[in-house]
Amino acid sequence: MKLAIVGCGAVGSAVAELAGEYGHHVTALADSTSATVDSDGIDIAAALERKAEGQGVGTVDIDRALDAEYDVLVEATPTTLGDAEPGFGHVAHALERDRDVVLANKGPVAERYGDLRALEAESDGRVRFEATVAGAIPVLGTINDYGRENVTAAKGILNGTANFVLSRMAAEGLDYEHVLAEAQDLGVAEADPTFDVDGTDAALKCVILANVLADGERTYALEDASVEGIRSIPPSALSLAGEDGRTVRLVGEATADGARVGPRLVPDDGALSVSGTRNVVQLETEHAGSLQLGGRGAGGDETASAVLADVRRLQG
Amino acid sequence: MKLAIVGCGAVGSAVAELAGEYGHHVTALADSTSATVDSDGIDIAAALERKAEGQGVGTVDIDRALDAEYDVLVEATPTTLGDAEPGFGHVAHALERDRDVVLANKGPVAERYGDLRALEAESDGRVRFEATVAGAIPVLGTINDYGRENVTAAKGILNGTANFVLSRMAAEGLDYEHVLAEAQDLGVAEADPTFDVDGTDAALKCVILANVLADGERTYALEDASVEGIRSIPPSALSLAGEDGRTVRLVGEATADGARVGPRLVPDDGALSVSGTRNVVQLETEHAGSLQLGGRGAGGDETASAVLADVRRLQG
Repeated sequence: MKLAIVGCGAVGSAVAELAGEYGHHVTALADSTSATVDSDGIDIAAALERKAEGQGVGTVDIDRALDAEYDVLVEATPTTLGDAEPGFGHVAHALERDRDVVLANKGPVAERYGDLRALEAESDGRVRFEATVAGAIPVLGTINDYGRENVTAAKGILNGTANFVLSRMAAEGLDYEHVLAEAQDLGVAEADPTFDVDGTDAALKCVILANVLADGERTYALEDASVEGIRSIPPSALSLAGEDGRTVRLVGEATADGARVGPRLVPDDGALSVSGTRNVVQLETEHAGSLQLGGRGAGGDETASAVLADVRRLQG
Repeated sequence: MKLAIVGCGAVGSAVAELAGEYGHHVTALADSTSATVDSDGIDIAAALERKAEGQGVGTVDIDRALDAEYDVLVEATPTTLGDAEPGFGHVAHALERDRDVVLANKGPVAERYGDLRALEAESDGRVRFEATVAGAIPVLGTINDYGRENVTAAKGILNGTANFVLSRMAAEGLDYEHVLAEAQDLGVAEADPTFDVDGTDAALKCVILANVLADGERTYALEDASVEGIRSIPPSALSLAGEDGRTVRLVGEATADGARVGPRLVPDDGALSVSGTRNVVQLETEHAGSLQLGGRGAGGDETASAVLADVRRLQG
């Protein structure tokens, strides 16, 4: 397949680097300021080297990437809230051209799901977005295979940073600020961890899951979700939970009726008590009991693997 | 899709009962002695009632089901070893008719993978077999999406009976014979538990995984696998492991180089220390780290869900 990749952060650049191994050609690559386009396949190493040197990936305008020859647009620009631009516009443009779209950007599926489905309905192009929920973990593919109508609920640990902080607080008896600083030193938490520790990132994933489970009959956005973060959890709450064979995790939940995220008590030996930055999603099904899907919920290569799994599914 | 279902045990009858919910028509259903066929859709309730009363599901010959009008043949007769008949012949007949095949029967994919691939290559029909490995758990779909060339190994708890016995022995300090009798009383173990406790069932699943990972370049059968069961594990081994924060589980492993099954020490808090009859499979990937997939590895509805997920994928 010919891929145009818009967005060249950790995920976009990993998709570009891995695409060849999966048998695809990258015909366009754009970052926030420039693009490089070649219908025979761009020179990926040269583009990423230019970027590493602090230049743009290419020398032409971003619009040239959007208008390039491709089968699938990979939208990997940073997630934005509200109108979800510029990502939404990129997706709309590809669908107007009857091209398939694979999203790593959560914005369009979390904030404008109804608009997106309406555009998809008018297009010969299809939209896939496995990478937007729990990185490498095949959550949406599994829901699709088993039938969204057969999945009654999804629940899980959807933010590695928050989970790392809670795991360390519980294991070491340390307070939130101390562990957060440690996580920042380790590169596990970002300099501004707001999205992670306030539950916003996990909530976006739950909103996407709720949109999928509701199948367009109702649509949700971040503002519809009930969201509580982990900042105010005292170490004493964790040690009390521990005495009772339980621990506290930031749990996200989604059904066709909506999404919510907050700290919850979970059993120490239960599926949701994963440690460190791992993610896990539990799907409740009508006929197959509960399924647990665990793995790495973030990371360039991991998320790129989910993008390329979507491309493979589109290929059929 | 129009489904012909051959085999009417727990899985075949569950596929028949659930097919309508998934939007399919069952045009033929056969058990070991008879069949019922109707190109407009058979009366499933009536067929299953005849069977419950001790009669055959229908009044015509089984061959009529194999020659019926259908899009997908669901092969759910009991797994047989060696020539994998009569299942293999059913699959071959469907492929000769250029029809798709979904297997719940492990025999043809474990014992005659090379023959099966050769027939598939000459047919317009495709073969899928998610239900043969770990029931409801989407192991093969995930390998397919992420690319078999990107999955380096699969490891897991693939037999619920053996796992139940080991879990109970460890938890209660009881010996093998005692726990096995209890499991038989509960209906968790069959009257003849040989296939489960000797590792044969888990080995068949690992052989199937090895065949998938080797992608036809090499093929494996049960006789190529190294297999050790759980009969000779003393309770003392389990209590010693427990003192060390570990437990014993019957672990199956598969790579492109082959398959093996045997009792292994696993950490108490690791992905493979599931309790009771649950199964779990851990996939090691090139770019996405390890993925854990857990759920119910057996049961009529659960396995039927995997069959119907395959049908959905064929539908595209």
